[in-house]
Amino acid sequence: MPVDRSHPAFEFHRQGKIGTEITKPITSRDDLSLAYTPHVGLVSEAIHGDPAAVWEYTGRGNSVAIVTDGTAVLGLGDLGPEAAMPVMEGKAVLFKHFAGIDAVPICLNVTEVHDVIAAVKAISPTFGGINLEDISAPRCFEIEGRLAEDLDIPVFHDDQHGTAIVTTAALINAAKAVSKPIDELRVTILGCGAAGVATAKLFAYLGVVDIIGVDRLGCIYRGRKQNMNGQKRWFANKTNPRKVRGGIDDALVDADVFIGVSGPGLVKPEFVDEMNEDAIVFAMSNPVPEIMPEEMPTGVAVVATGRSDYPNQINNVLAFPGVFRGLLDVRASKIDPEMKLSAARAIAEVIPDSEITPERVIPGVFNEDVVPAVADAIRGAARDAGAARR
Amino acid sequence: MPVDRSHPAFEFHRQGKIGTEITKPITSRDDLSLAYTPHVGLVSEAIHGDPAAVWEYTGRGNSVAIVTDGTAVLGLGDLGPEAAMPVMEGKAVLFKHFAGIDAVPICLNVTEVHDVIAAVKAISPTFGGINLEDISAPRCFEIEGRLAEDLDIPVFHDDQHGTAIVTTAALINAAKAVSKPIDELRVTILGCGAAGVATAKLFAYLGVVDIIGVDRLGCIYRGRKQNMNGQKRWFANKTNPRKVRGGIDDALVDADVFIGVSGPGLVKPEFVDEMNEDAIVFAMSNPVPEIMPEEMPTGVAVVATGRSDYPNQINNVLAFPGVFRGLLDVRASKIDPEMKLSAARAIAEVIPDSEITPERVIPGVFNEDVVPAVADAIRGAARDAGAARR
Repeated sequence: MPVDRSHPAFEFHRQGKIGTEITKPITSRDDLSLAYTPHVGLVSEAIHGDPAAVWEYTGRGNSVAIVTDGTAVLGLGDLGPEAAMPVMEGKAVLFKHFAGIDAVPICLNVTEVHDVIAAVKAISPTFGGINLEDISAPRCFEIEGRLAEDLDIPVFHDDQHGTAIVTTAALINAAKAVSKPIDELRVTILGCGAAGVATAKLFAYLGVVDIIGVDRLGCIYRGRKQNMNGQKRWFANKTNPRKVRGGIDDALVDADVFIGVSGPGLVKPEFVDEMNEDAIVFAMSNPVPEIMPEEMPTGVAVVATGRSDYPNQINNVLAFPGVFRGLLDVRASKIDPEMKLSAARAIAEVIPDSEITPERVIPGVFNEDVVPAVADAIRGAARDAGAARR
Repeated sequence: MPVDRSHPAFEFHRQGKIGTEITKPITSRDDLSLAYTPHVGLVSEAIHGDPAAVWEYTGRGNSVAIVTDGTAVLGLGDLGPEAAMPVMEGKAVLFKHFAGIDAVPICLNVTEVHDVIAAVKAISPTFGGINLEDISAPRCFEIEGRLAEDLDIPVFHDDQHGTAIVTTAALINAAKAVSKPIDELRVTILGCGAAGVATAKLFAYLGVVDIIGVDRLGCIYRGRKQNMNGQKRWFANKTNPRKVRGGIDDALVDADVFIGVSGPGLVKPEFVDEMNEDAIVFAMSNPVPEIMPEEMPTGVAVVATGRSDYPNQINNVLAFPGVFRGLLDVRASKIDPEMKLSAARAIAEVIPDSEITPERVIPGVFNEDVVPAVADAIRGAARDAGAARR
């Protein structure tokens, strides 16, 4: 079915949303001889003799590649690299708008894991960081893992860690809003793809002890055989201490927190009604949540979604601009869980404890305090981790 | 030896010379929802259903990747991808300044021919054209050839074809300046690397019949065994009709044209003195020519170099901005010899016949008539070649 192009998004997107800008204008023949031959050769020779000089005399230190293979474009699936382009350009716009970062879309027409890895490694000397985007699970885990191991610049799969960081920030404040300690929370996560896995891991790193991951086949538990992969084996081995089995309805009985990173309308009000008192429900399927805020039973205390038209919007844009701003500022060689958690805490702390309410557990996407706070936290954590080059 | 960083080029290059610019500003939450989720999804779906829409709704149609592996950085050799970065950024500045093109440096840390090809193919959906740069010969020939065959966007190795186009433009007007017909010229080319080979081929395509290629070992002739490769076999099979042997001194006896794409000071005045009356000497080794203009014997009528401080500067910037402007304007699928020759003729014709003099066979690099003329010629030739998508 042909797509109706009358929506204003089409006019907005005509010829794209981002281009290049000269930062050292050419106003004379002398400028030309500095920017290009012959004098640029002096700079090349200096970098050849002292590779660290690339951070001083080129744009590498402010640049990020936004890499996709188009296999998981938004929630739309495997649309291919061309169709992914507007999303990557949108991301580049956000990088620039929120953090002044020069981000370049790189849409790959290879999908084999080793081909994606090879392409990203090949282009890596050009960039100060790699933002992986919209790469399908479970391929994304191996791609990110091997790149992080092999490269000396940070590699960050935003669908995983951006979501994990912002969700963790919201959880920190939501727990405060209902006065429940983090280590006593029972958390049920519906969706064990990129976002679900990373969120569960960061929750565990934060100190959450009781997590249940639920996928299409129901609860993941030690010994489950069907529909497993490396990441789900992590769920099987490291989560579900009460060995709960069954569907999402079973997993929500006596839960304190529901995290939805799955699909529209998958959770019924009667499931949520089985949750503990003062339940926290983050229904982040977008644009249609797992359960609409209007449908919440009365026992639910905190509701968040991915949408801008309800309170508590959980949106990655709260994380990735500040995360990469901080990483680039210190010329970081990597990003580790402690750095990610520092970013989550920084986002949470933008709202003073006295101002946390059930309707305000996470700052708004245009809150100007967020990026500097996140960047500062990342810089500090990178230094602590020995990952900072300056 | 550490490089002295007091030259103004270093201050000029601090943090690089180019970044990204948002072309569709985000001024509200509504803009954010158009540029990114949720409404960007409509554009992605439209492109998925109609791949040609990528040219309408993304920046692909105005973007070029400037790809290098750092193996032949300027005349400095194999300095690696990081050291190549300032040169690629300089090129990106020129693309934007002269032709409004959004060009992105891509510096590769692979040098095996098949790895370079794989990386460029992988990233190709992102760009409307590929400018290969500073890739060493003879590797560059196979890399360009296979990419041109496999991709449906134009692939242009500027060190070859940019030089060939501008040199051909200068030759067209120089021949007019000395009133010698193109097909009667005897041309000696010193240097059979990327630039020498492409220039010889475009000269032949223009109608030059008598060309001699000379490399380190001397004249290339049919049957020569030493120091040969695919491109030199082309010289052996298709040039040197008089079967001249010997060194550059022998090759210049009775020559009408000398083309130097070799190294500093390789040609002595007494060699040039053996050339025909009204000789044409393009000594393009840069910054130090094969022979300095001051050393020219009196029989030389036209002198050109790569330098800005002598008349007749042969500089690639006269070609690549307009070439890619034209290619992108028609969403070209390729570039062929006829299109390259049309660009050379367009550059030559910027100077009316009545204004051609031995000191003015090529327009200056800041002549604003050049880019539109070249782009127009390329658009027309692309349409004639069936290479235009619109």
